Amino acid sequence: MSSAQTIRLAVIRGDGIGPEVVDEALKVLHAVLPDDLVVEETPFSLGAARYLETGDILTDDDMAAIAEHDAILLGAVGGDPRDPRLAGGIIERGLLLKLRFAFDHYVNLRPTTVHPAVATPLADPGEVDFVVVREGTEGPYVGNGGAIRTGTPQEIATEVSLNTAFGVERVVRYAFDLAHRRPRRHLTLVHKSNVLVHAGALWQRTVAAVGAEYPDVTVDYQHVDAVTIHMVRDPARFDVIVTDNLFGDIITDLAGAISGGIGLAASGNINPDGTFPSMFEPVHGSAPDIAGQQLADPTAAILSVALLLDHLGRGDLAAAVTGAVESDLADRGTTPRRTAEIGDAIAAAATARTTTA
Amino acid sequence: MSSAQTIRLAVIRGDGIGPEVVDEALKVLHAVLPDDLVVEETPFSLGAARYLETGDILTDDDMAAIAEHDAILLGAVGGDPRDPRLAGGIIERGLLLKLRFAFDHYVNLRPTTVHPAVATPLADPGEVDFVVVREGTEGPYVGNGGAIRTGTPQEIATEVSLNTAFGVERVVRYAFDLAHRRPRRHLTLVHKSNVLVHAGALWQRTVAAVGAEYPDVTVDYQHVDAVTIHMVRDPARFDVIVTDNLFGDIITDLAGAISGGIGLAASGNINPDGTFPSMFEPVHGSAPDIAGQQLADPTAAILSVALLLDHLGRGDLAAAVTGAVESDLADRGTTPRRTAEIGDAIAAAATARTTTA
Ligand SMILES: CC(C)[C@H](C(=O)O)[C@@H](O)C(=O)O
Ligand SMILES: CC(C)[C@H](C(=O)O)[C@@H](O)C(=O)O
Repeated sequence: MSSAQTIRLAVIRGDGIGPEVVDEALKVLHAVLPDDLVVEETPFSLGAARYLETGDILTDDDMAAIAEHDAILLGAVGGDPRDPRLAGGIIERGLLLKLRFAFDHYVNLRPTTVHPAVATPLADPGEVDFVVVREGTEGPYVGNGGAIRTGTPQEIATEVSLNTAFGVERVVRYAFDLAHRRPRRHLTLVHKSNVLVHAGALWQRTVAAVGAEYPDVTVDYQHVDAVTIHMVRDPARFDVIVTDNLFGDIITDLAGAISGGIGLAASGNINPDGTFPSMFEPVHGSAPDIAGQQLADPTAAILSVALLLDHLGRGDLAAAVTGAVESDLADRGTTPRRTAEIGDAIAAAATARTTTA
Repeated sequence: MSSAQTIRLAVIRGDGIGPEVVDEALKVLHAVLPDDLVVEETPFSLGAARYLETGDILTDDDMAAIAEHDAILLGAVGGDPRDPRLAGGIIERGLLLKLRFAFDHYVNLRPTTVHPAVATPLADPGEVDFVVVREGTEGPYVGNGGAIRTGTPQEIATEVSLNTAFGVERVVRYAFDLAHRRPRRHLTLVHKSNVLVHAGALWQRTVAAVGAEYPDVTVDYQHVDAVTIHMVRDPARFDVIVTDNLFGDIITDLAGAISGGIGLAASGNINPDGTFPSMFEPVHGSAPDIAGQQLADPTAAILSVALLLDHLGRGDLAAAVTGAVESDLADRGTTPRRTAEIGDAIAAAATARTTTA
C-alpha cells in the first residue's frame, strides 16, 4: 500500500460571508480527494472580529504557524466598513497584504471566463477566457507613503510606487510562460507608460526583453484607461494580461463584473518558488450585510480550491472542480439557492467527475 | 448698438483626427453664435507633427500666447504610438499635461449620459447621467518619479503621488457645489483608501469637512476597484463622482465606453478661478489609423464646445448644442456618415434651436 500524500492546509475563514463560503469550498475539496491524498486542515481565527476582540491582527506566532503549511485557503476578511476602529484598511493591510508580502506572493492570478449560461451585464460579451497576472509585492501597494501637517491646510500626503527590475522580471516571466502554454499565446501588458514614465519604461523594457525568449507569444501594450474600454466592448480579445499591483486590482474587479459577477471570481496569490505557502481566495470581500444568512454564492471560493489543486500539481482534481462548477452554472435556474445547497450540488457533481474519470 | 462680447479662442487642432473633429466643433460653435457674441480664433500648430518637424513641443512663447486667450479648444494630440521618437508619452506630457498643470486646470470635468438611441455595450444601462470631477493637477500625474540603475537587474523605478490639502479641498468644493445644483444632490468619493492610506485619508477627511457645509448633498465612498463593478452593473446610481487624477483617468474611459463610446465623451479642463484659460477637448485620442479619412465622429469635440460655452456663461447656447447633438443621436441610422456630414447635421439643428428659442 503506497503512502498517501498530505496537504497541510491553513484555513482562514475570516469575517462576514468568509466562513460560509469556505465551508462549501472545503466540502468540494473533500469531495474530490482520492485515496492517495489527505488534507490536514489547521483553522486560523483571523480577521476583523478577532482584532476587535483581542487587538491582534496577525502575530509573529500566527505567521510562523501559517508558514508551516503547503497552502492557505482564505474566505474574506474585513468588518463593517463604517466602523471607525477599522478605518484605513487596517485589516486589509495588516492581514491580507501582510500575508501577500511576507509570503512573497508575487503572482496574483485571476482568471476570467464567461460561462454561456451566466447572465452578464454586457449585451454581447463573446467568448471570454483570459487570465490577469497581477504583480503582488510591489507598485503602489508597498505602503511607502506619508503625510506632513496632517489635518492642516498645509497637509501634504504622498504615496510611492516602488518597482524593481527583479520584481517586474519574475512576474513578466511567469506571464509569458503561462501565455506560451495557452492556445492563443498572446500577452497584453497593461500600464500607464505615457504618464508613469519611469515605472512604465521598466515594465515595457522588461516585457520586450523577456518576450525575446518567447518568440511564439505575440505581445501588445495597452494603457490602463484604454483597457477598461476593451474590457466592456471586446473582452474576448484578451488572453494573458500582465500588469502592476494597482492596475491589476482595478481591472480584475471589472473583469469579475463583466464575467457575470464577482461571486464567480477566484484568485491565487502565488509564490511560484515554493518558498512560502501560496494563498487562494475569492476576489469578493466579506459582505457583512449578507453574512450568516446563507445568501452568499460560494462559487468563487470553490473555484479558488480549483486553483489551489492546480498549484499543488493536481490539475486532474482541479478539472473535476471546474467541470462541476460549469455544469452547476449551466443548470442554475432563477430560484435562489442557499450557500450550502450550491456547495452540495457542486460537491456531488465533482465527486461524480472523479469517480467516472 | 451695444458692443458685442468677444471670445478669444486658442485652437489646437493637433494630430490625427484632431483637425477633422475641431473643424466640425467650430462649425457648430459658429452656428449658434448670436449677434452679440464674436469668436476670435487663434490657431496653434502643436502636436506630434510639429515636434517631429521642429523639435519643439510647447515653447514659452506658445504658452504666453495661449495664456492671452479666454479658452482653448483642443482636438487631440499624439502621433503613431509605435514611433520610438514619441515614446514615453513625450507629447502627452509635454503638451497636454503641461497645459493642464501650467494653467492650473484643477477640475477635469467629464459628464456621462446614455442617450436612449445610442447603442451601449451594456444590456440594460438604465438612466445614466453623472459627472466625474477628476482632479487635474496632483496625484500620480505630477511627474515626480525616477529610476536608478536603469537597464540593469538592479533597476528601481519610482512614481510618487503628491496630494495636498489645498489641491484636494478646492476640487472637492467644486464637486459639492456641482452636486448641490443637480437634482439628485449626491456625491461619491472614489479612491483606494484601504491601501493608499495617506492620500486616501486626506481625501476622506476633506470630503467630510467640506460636506458639512453641504447638508443637502448625500455622500458615499467607493473604492476604485468596486466602482468599476457598479459602472457596468448599475451606472445609473451615480450623480457626481469626485476623484484623484489617475482614478479619474481610468473610470472616465470606462464611463465613455458604457455610455456608447468614447466618440461621445467630452471634457473640460477647468481653471475655476479664471486666472488661466480653461481647455475643452474630447476624451478620445488622435486615432492616427483613421486620420484624414472623414471617419471620425466629431460629436465629442462638439460636446466639448457645449462645455466651453457653459463655462463662458452661455448656458443657453450650450443647451442649443447639446440639444442638437441629442436630436442627431436619436436620428442616427446605421448608415455611416462622414465627419463633416455629422457636423453639418448638428450645426443645422443647433442653428434651428437658437433661432426658435
Ligand atoms: C482588500 C484589498 C486590499 C484588496 C486589494 O486591493 O488587493 C482587494 O481589493 C483585492 O483585490 O484582493
Ligand atoms: C493622454 C493622457 C496623458 C491623458 C491622461 O492620462 O490624462 C488621457 O488619457 C486623458 O484622459 O485625457
